[in-house]
Amino acid sequence: MAAIGAMPEIGGFRQKSRRSFVTLILTVLTSSQSILIVWSKRAGKYEYSVTTANFLVEALKCALSLVTLLRIWRKDGVTDDNRLSTTWDEVKVYPIPAALYLVKNLLQYYIFAYVDAPGYQILKNLNIISTGILYQIILKRKLTEIQWAAFILLCAGCTTAQLNPSSDHVLQAPLQGWVMAIVMALLSGFAGVYTEAIIKKRPSRNINVQNFWLYVFGMIFNAFAIMTQDFDAVMNDGFFHGYSLITVLMILNHALSGIAVSMVMKYADNIVKVYSTSVAMLLTAVVSVFLFGFHLSLAFFLGSIVVSVAIYLHSTSKARR
Amino acid sequence: MAAIGAMPEIGGFRQKSRRSFVTLILTVLTSSQSILIVWSKRAGKYEYSVTTANFLVEALKCALSLVTLLRIWRKDGVTDDNRLSTTWDEVKVYPIPAALYLVKNLLQYYIFAYVDAPGYQILKNLNIISTGILYQIILKRKLTEIQWAAFILLCAGCTTAQLNPSSDHVLQAPLQGWVMAIVMALLSGFAGVYTEAIIKKRPSRNINVQNFWLYVFGMIFNAFAIMTQDFDAVMNDGFFHGYSLITVLMILNHALSGIAVSMVMKYADNIVKVYSTSVAMLLTAVVSVFLFGFHLSLAFFLGSIVVSVAIYLHSTSKARR
Repeated sequence: MAAIGAMPEIGGFRQKSRRSFVTLILTVLTSSQSILIVWSKRAGKYEYSVTTANFLVEALKCALSLVTLLRIWRKDGVTDDNRLSTTWDEVKVYPIPAALYLVKNLLQYYIFAYVDAPGYQILKNLNIISTGILYQIILKRKLTEIQWAAFILLCAGCTTAQLNPSSDHVLQAPLQGWVMAIVMALLSGFAGVYTEAIIKKRPSRNINVQNFWLYVFGMIFNAFAIMTQDFDAVMNDGFFHGYSLITVLMILNHALSGIAVSMVMKYADNIVKVYSTSVAMLLTAVVSVFLFGFHLSLAFFLGSIVVSVAIYLHSTSKARR
Repeated sequence: MAAIGAMPEIGGFRQKSRRSFVTLILTVLTSSQSILIVWSKRAGKYEYSVTTANFLVEALKCALSLVTLLRIWRKDGVTDDNRLSTTWDEVKVYPIPAALYLVKNLLQYYIFAYVDAPGYQILKNLNIISTGILYQIILKRKLTEIQWAAFILLCAGCTTAQLNPSSDHVLQAPLQGWVMAIVMALLSGFAGVYTEAIIKKRPSRNINVQNFWLYVFGMIFNAFAIMTQDFDAVMNDGFFHGYSLITVLMILNHALSGIAVSMVMKYADNIVKVYSTSVAMLLTAVVSVFLFGFHLSLAFFLGSIVVSVAIYLHSTSKARR
C-alpha cells in the first residue's frame, strides 16, 4: 500500500487501476477483520480493553506512515508535498474526524440501553444513507438519480442480508434508540465525508503525510478514551492485559484497513468505501460458512442479490456520466 | 371496464391513461382478492369445491363479455372487428392458455409433497423471472438492462416482503420440489405471455370477442377439472355446496380481475401485469394491518423499499426509450 501512495499519476488507466486496487484491498481487509472478530469471540478471548487496542491501531498506522515517508524522502528527497512540517491552516481540521469518532464511540455505550445488539447491527446500516446525504452536502458532488436508487438498494440489501428471527425487535425500539442511531449514523457519516474533504482539499499533498496527522490526533483522542473508560483496568492489570495472538492480528488488520480506507478516500470516495465495506460484509458471511459452519439464510441470498444489482446500477450509471 | 374496451383510440394520451386505468383497476382487484381469501379463511368457510368456483368465474367472465358486446353491437353495429363468429385460424390458439393453466393447477396438488405452503408462496415469485424471460423470447420485445435489473429487484423484493421465520425451509426443499416450482413458473409465465401474444396478434379485434373465446375454453377446461377432481362432491352435495356470501364475492372479484388482466394484456403487457400484482401483494399486507390486526415485519418494509425502487427504475428506463 505504501508503494501505491508514492506511485506517480500517469493517465486515467493507472488512476483507475489504483482505485480498483485499493478498493479490493479494503474489501479483503474489512472482511478478514470481521472473521478475526468472530474467531476471537469463538476462542473466548475478548478480555483485553478495546481502548488500548484502538490506541495501538492508531500508533501502528502512524508508524507505518512514517516508515513509508522515510522511504519516499530517501528516494525523491523532501519536497513541499511530502514534508512532514505543516501549517496551522492545514492541520487545524485534522482533529475533527478523530473527535467525531470519539463521540460516536461514547454514544455506542448508551444506545444499548434502548436497542439490543442485533437491532444495533440493523440500525448501523443507516450509515449508508447518512454517508450519501452528507457526501452530497459537504463534498458538493451530486449522485445521479440512478446512483441514489442504487444507494437505497445497498442499504436495504445489506439490512436484508443481516435479517434474523429477532431483527423485528428493532421496530419496537423506543424513539430515543432511533434518535441515537440516527445521530450516530450522522456522526460516522460526517467523520468519513470530512476525512475525504481534508484529504482531497490538497490533492498533491502526499497521502502519508495526511495520514500521519490524522493518526496523531487519533492517538491523542484514543489516549483520552483509555483514561476515561479503562484507566483502572490498565492500572491494575497492565496495558496489554488479555492480549493474545488474535488480538495482535486484529490490531494489525485494523491498522492496514485504516490505511486502506484513507487510500480509498484519496483515490476514490466515500461512496466506493461504503460499497466496499458492504461487499466485505457479504464476503464475511460466505467465508464463515466454510470456516465456522455458519448457515446462510434465504434473507442473506435475497440481500446479496439486491446488493449485486445496486453495484451494477452504480457502475453503469458512472460509466454514462 | 366494458366501456373502456369500446373506447376509441384517440392519440397517445388516451392510450396512456387507459393503460394506467386498467393497471390501477387490476391492482385494486388483485389486492381485494387476497383480502377476501383471508376473510373467507378467517370466517372458517372454505368448504366449497374450488373447481366449481373456477368454472363459475369463467362463465361469469364469458357472460360479461357477451353483455358488453351486445351494447357495442347496438351502438356501433356488427363489424369485422367485433363480430363473434370466428375462423379456425383465429380460434385454434385460444385453448392453449387454458390448457396450460389446467396443467399448472394439477401440478399444484403434487408440489406440496415436496414443499410446504409458506415455501410454495416463496417459490411462486419465480413466476416474475419466468415471465420476463418468456416475454423476451415469445413476444420478441427487449427489456433494457435497467429494466432487467428492476425485474430481478421486483422478484427479490417481493420474496423479501413475504419472508417469515419458516421461509428458510424452502432452501432445504428437495430437488424435485425446485424442479416442479420452476416448471410451474414456466407454465404460468408461458400462459400469460401466450395470452398477450394472442390478444396483440389482432390489435383491431375487439377485446371482448377475444375474451369471449378465451373464456369459453376456460369453461371447458374447468368443467374437465370438476369432473376429474370434485365429481363425487358435486354429485353428493350439489354444485353450490358450501357457498357463502364471501364465496360469491370472491367469484365476482375473480371474474372482474380476470377481465382486468385481459385489458392489461391488450393495452399494456405482461411486465405491467407483474408489477401490478406485486404492488397488490404489498397493498394487501398493509390493508390487512387495519382489517385483521396483522403485524408488518422489518422484512416487509425492506421488501417494499426494494419493490418501490424497482418500479422507479422500470418507469424511468421506459421514459428514456
